[in-house]
Amino acid sequence: MPKKIILDCDPGHDDAIALLLAHGSPEIELLAVTTVVGNQTLEKVTRNALSVARVAGITGVPFAAGCARPLVRTVEVAPDIHGESGLDGPVLPEPVIGLDERHAVDLIIDTIMAEEPGTVTLVPTGGLTNIAMAARKEPRIVPRVKEVVLMGGGYHVGNWSATSEFNIIIDPEAAHIVFNESWPLTMVGLDLTHQALATPEVRERIRAIDTAPARFVEELLEFFAGTYLEAQGFLHPPVHDPCAVARVIDPDVMTARRVPLDVELSGTLTLGMTVADFRSPAPEDCITQVAVDLDHERFWALIVDALERIGDPEA
Amino acid sequence: MPKKIILDCDPGHDDAIALLLAHGSPEIELLAVTTVVGNQTLEKVTRNALSVARVAGITGVPFAAGCARPLVRTVEVAPDIHGESGLDGPVLPEPVIGLDERHAVDLIIDTIMAEEPGTVTLVPTGGLTNIAMAARKEPRIVPRVKEVVLMGGGYHVGNWSATSEFNIIIDPEAAHIVFNESWPLTMVGLDLTHQALATPEVRERIRAIDTAPARFVEELLEFFAGTYLEAQGFLHPPVHDPCAVARVIDPDVMTARRVPLDVELSGTLTLGMTVADFRSPAPEDCITQVAVDLDHERFWALIVDALERIGDPEA
Amino acid sequence: MPKKIILDCDPGHDDAIALLLAHGSPEIELLAVTTVVGNQTLEKVTRNALSVARVAGITGVPFAAGCARPLVRTVEVAPDIHGESGLDGPVLPEPVIGLDERHAVDLIIDTIMAEEPGTVTLVPTGGLTNIAMAARKEPRIVPRVKEVVLMGGGYHVGNWSATSEFNIIIDPEAAHIVFNESWPLTMVGLDLTHQALATPEVRERIRAIDTAPARFVEELLEFFAGTYLEAQGFLHPPVHDPCAVARVIDPDVMTARRVPLDVELSGTLTLGMTVADFRSPAPEDCITQVAVDLDHERFWALIVDALERIGDPEA
Amino acid sequence: MPKKIILDCDPGHDDAIALLLAHGSPEIELLAVTTVVGNQTLEKVTRNALSVARVAGITGVPFAAGCARPLVRTVEVAPDIHGESGLDGPVLPEPVIGLDERHAVDLIIDTIMAEEPGTVTLVPTGGLTNIAMAARKEPRIVPRVKEVVLMGGGYHVGNWSATSEFNIIIDPEAAHIVFNESWPLTMVGLDLTHQALATPEVRERIRAIDTAPARFVEELLEFFAGTYLEAQGFLHPPVHDPCAVARVIDPDVMTARRVPLDVELSGTLTLGMTVADFRSPAPEDCITQVAVDLDHERFWALIVDALERIGDPEA
Repeated sequence: MPKKIILDCDPGHDDAIALLLAHGSPEIELLAVTTVVGNQTLEKVTRNALSVARVAGITGVPFAAGCARPLVRTVEVAPDIHGESGLDGPVLPEPVIGLDERHAVDLIIDTIMAEEPGTVTLVPTGGLTNIAMAARKEPRIVPRVKEVVLMGGGYHVGNWSATSEFNIIIDPEAAHIVFNESWPLTMVGLDLTHQALATPEVRERIRAIDTAPARFVEELLEFFAGTYLEAQGFLHPPVHDPCAVARVIDPDVMTARRVPLDVELSGTLTLGMTVADFRSPAPEDCITQVAVDLDHERFWALIVDALERIGDPEA
Repeated sequence: MPKKIILDCDPGHDDAIALLLAHGSPEIELLAVTTVVGNQTLEKVTRNALSVARVAGITGVPFAAGCARPLVRTVEVAPDIHGESGLDGPVLPEPVIGLDERHAVDLIIDTIMAEEPGTVTLVPTGGLTNIAMAARKEPRIVPRVKEVVLMGGGYHVGNWSATSEFNIIIDPEAAHIVFNESWPLTMVGLDLTHQALATPEVRERIRAIDTAPARFVEELLEFFAGTYLEAQGFLHPPVHDPCAVARVIDPDVMTARRVPLDVELSGTLTLGMTVADFRSPAPEDCITQVAVDLDHERFWALIVDALERIGDPEA
Repeated sequence: MPKKIILDCDPGHDDAIALLLAHGSPEIELLAVTTVVGNQTLEKVTRNALSVARVAGITGVPFAAGCARPLVRTVEVAPDIHGESGLDGPVLPEPVIGLDERHAVDLIIDTIMAEEPGTVTLVPTGGLTNIAMAARKEPRIVPRVKEVVLMGGGYHVGNWSATSEFNIIIDPEAAHIVFNESWPLTMVGLDLTHQALATPEVRERIRAIDTAPARFVEELLEFFAGTYLEAQGFLHPPVHDPCAVARVIDPDVMTARRVPLDVELSGTLTLGMTVADFRSPAPEDCITQVAVDLDHERFWALIVDALERIGDPEA
Repeated sequence: MPKKIILDCDPGHDDAIALLLAHGSPEIELLAVTTVVGNQTLEKVTRNALSVARVAGITGVPFAAGCARPLVRTVEVAPDIHGESGLDGPVLPEPVIGLDERHAVDLIIDTIMAEEPGTVTLVPTGGLTNIAMAARKEPRIVPRVKEVVLMGGGYHVGNWSATSEFNIIIDPEAAHIVFNESWPLTMVGLDLTHQALATPEVRERIRAIDTAPARFVEELLEFFAGTYLEAQGFLHPPVHDPCAVARVIDPDVMTARRVPLDVELSGTLTLGMTVADFRSPAPEDCITQVAVDLDHERFWALIVDALERIGDPEA
């Protein structure tokens, strides 16, 4: 039986690939897609999500826009990585589906409350504002969620500062809320995603699929490769967000370690750090874990498989 | 023309009096009453609000329950001041009205969006979780709000710590959100409310009204006098929350000073302090002010007048 | 019997007047003068101290230079208030005495250890780096000190930020050390010193003394008046540092209140705030107090008297 | 030509071994030994240092006691690891040498100022209070120091909290001072020292030396093995402090990486964390580095060699 997920995202190049992976995988039932400010403004990432839906041929799934700014901090976006549109590179098609009338926070709540308890996995791949707001607005969702599998943070690796990752530091208070709730949580952080590199060999395999969605992904990777080389010195770009989706599809695509996790809210050098306590065996009641090692081949096979299954929706 | 307000509260002895004042004043049109965790749990303060509605004879006004816990911090309630029920002292009548189906955050948003822009004043007398959530969920409410007149904080006075007041420190992140939004805001803090003492002369005037609501108020004051004497050494109890409502009814009931305001989120000794910068004339674009001096006689005359107008609803 | 003091200062216009007051008062025995970075660099304030010694006719008192930078923070000086020399305004005479060979920290320690326990009062009028270093290097001085009477901080007033005063915020860690040591401490802060205004009437009295030191003071006040008007909008300049000396000479020159005191080290808005807890009567073992109300006439009479006693040393 | 070092320590089991290693190595000229509060009180660690001097047969080297408490924080010692004496396990002989009359801070300053610039290496193996005080009291020592090679911190490993190591967190402000000074600094942190395990094979080699100092070391290791197993779950105890001395003797005993380093002073979860920024190649002017990989065999060979050279001093 496929796993039901809500994808909360801010496309974003790797978010777009995550959406394609979720849609193309037979292991995933995509219940809803929600957007949140992050890689670009809410308006832009929402438009991008709808464009990607058309590329992927997604219909019948509600899309809703969420929070336009973080809880406490001011808005910070990432044009150096994702360009002015948030999805620079390919030509973005006009969306053919519209937005759900509800706010993302309400769509998340309604969806979880409508499904059987313990069946819905939350997959946030952007800042955690929507998820935090939903948990505070309707606390009854928390015990109904099966688990949270998020892309964000890093136990030993940062990108926006020496110790913090973009998705967490843009709304550290929201992250603190999500990391401290009583749901099982897996952090797929930079330690893991910096292993998910789009190498030339990988890109060649994607090009070989030769469909419109595959060409779209290749154009995303082409742009992403350029900004990651320039901004962070990566030889091949890391493709973060699909890692969280891949973990849901196939837990064995990566190893994880159970460890207490929390988010630093007041450090001068460490604001937004996801602090993992590796000192000793995790306590019995620890419900957080961090992704550690990626099976690179297995991961990219999932992406390729999803693109092949999607085919050429508009052809 | 009466002023339209939404009262967001956590009754709470002084919240109850604030609600009676708002209902009894011809200068106020009470659009909605929302509740938030604070003086007691959400469940208790919501039940208390409905009981007070019966005492006051309030009908036709939607009441809605809001957030059950602060954004980031854990729940802290104040039984030392308000007792186990949150409204110890009088016998609380069974409510006769029910709750609106909506969440307080949505009732606040819907109410503001339904009224003419610039006509609705928010009057929070508890922690600021609901108000902060509403501003983040629907940013369009912010320019539509006429002003926020809140009870909370203190520029030179604290009660929960040397520098912080209860309503602010129970959810400092929410307070930070509300204090930094682009709406005009008046902080009626402890500096002002510690002047609103229920002296024997005041209580005698209330007793003389000799209605059920007036007796209810007197019983609240009797209990409040005891806890304030014991917990904070006050000879006569300060009646905080009605001061914010009184400011809306009659701005001349107190003086105020325009001054930049912010909320400290990271101090070891000063977490939750409402920091006012008195160093020089406030900048032209400063939209925050603090209440300074109370006209004690005029304030209590408003309370007495409201109680007299309310009369004996169930008689 | 005169009170023995060590004056630790960073002249600085008001430090210079404090030094003249200490030297001219029959109630004070000046054991040592030490300098510390603050209003200007250590080199400049040390040279200034020696120049003032010549103006005042001070001989036989050891002067020593101390710390050139705060414990943790980087150096911040105040040329907007004190000019490039740290003592702009008058022509500064060439010093005629030299520096003690010892470091200020050692001179402080040696002096305290050489005197009878309980006889030496420390009077810091700059940042607290030297005093903190002395307390940590030789903890035995702490119980031997009679008391610390310092100019710095403010319980409700700031100048370098909304909540902090210059002497504290330039080295908050040192202040934290000094405020938390087991010696009695009186904080003569901005709340008090903003009452010590050099009004035209006061300045006329000083001019009338018509000695070289009095003219020197008048030239200091003339410059100080200009910078305080421009930088902080004061009509008449506050003369901070002599207030601490005056408190030692005649405790009745000001009222003080016993209250727990501490220094905030981690606030975003409140770093360096001197937090006083006024909520209830101070605990029995509270050894800190804050100066509250100045007897303006009595204060300036002390200054005038000291200048008259000093006369014209080089005449 | 041997390298001149000042060893600033808080013996402490591994400090004791570090002292034996320094004394026994022909590559080291031990200029001075200074003590600081840490593993136990100043009084105890100072007494321990003198006892170890007797065991090792050290004469002609000045020993001085330093700071009895950290700069800002209260004293925290580690009896769980080092026992009540700070050096539990072996019988400690009565010292035969006395203390230098100077304070450790002054001995450090005098020693550096007396040697050729660029010749003295500071080797702190305890909290950094003495070193920080020396740098602040006499800034001229900073450019004269060749380098600081310290045991403390950890870039990915903590022991006293998830992110902090004992030597740093007991005086984070002192560590901040030392890490931010303009001297070259190598941090030999837990990442490295947790590789320096006293395995059974290692202990067998030490026992085989069969001298009084070697037996002393073995008794230290026996006790240390017990506390490390119980308190932190180590199968074989890590021997931290000698790693810093070993780095001075033979830089090739470990690899190091040049990386910006700083100390967190205000985090709730990360206070005292030594933050290393690995995001990109270190800037040209970066003068800090972290030890990464230990050559276990080479390290223990240095210890064994030193013990063999020391022989049986009292035999």
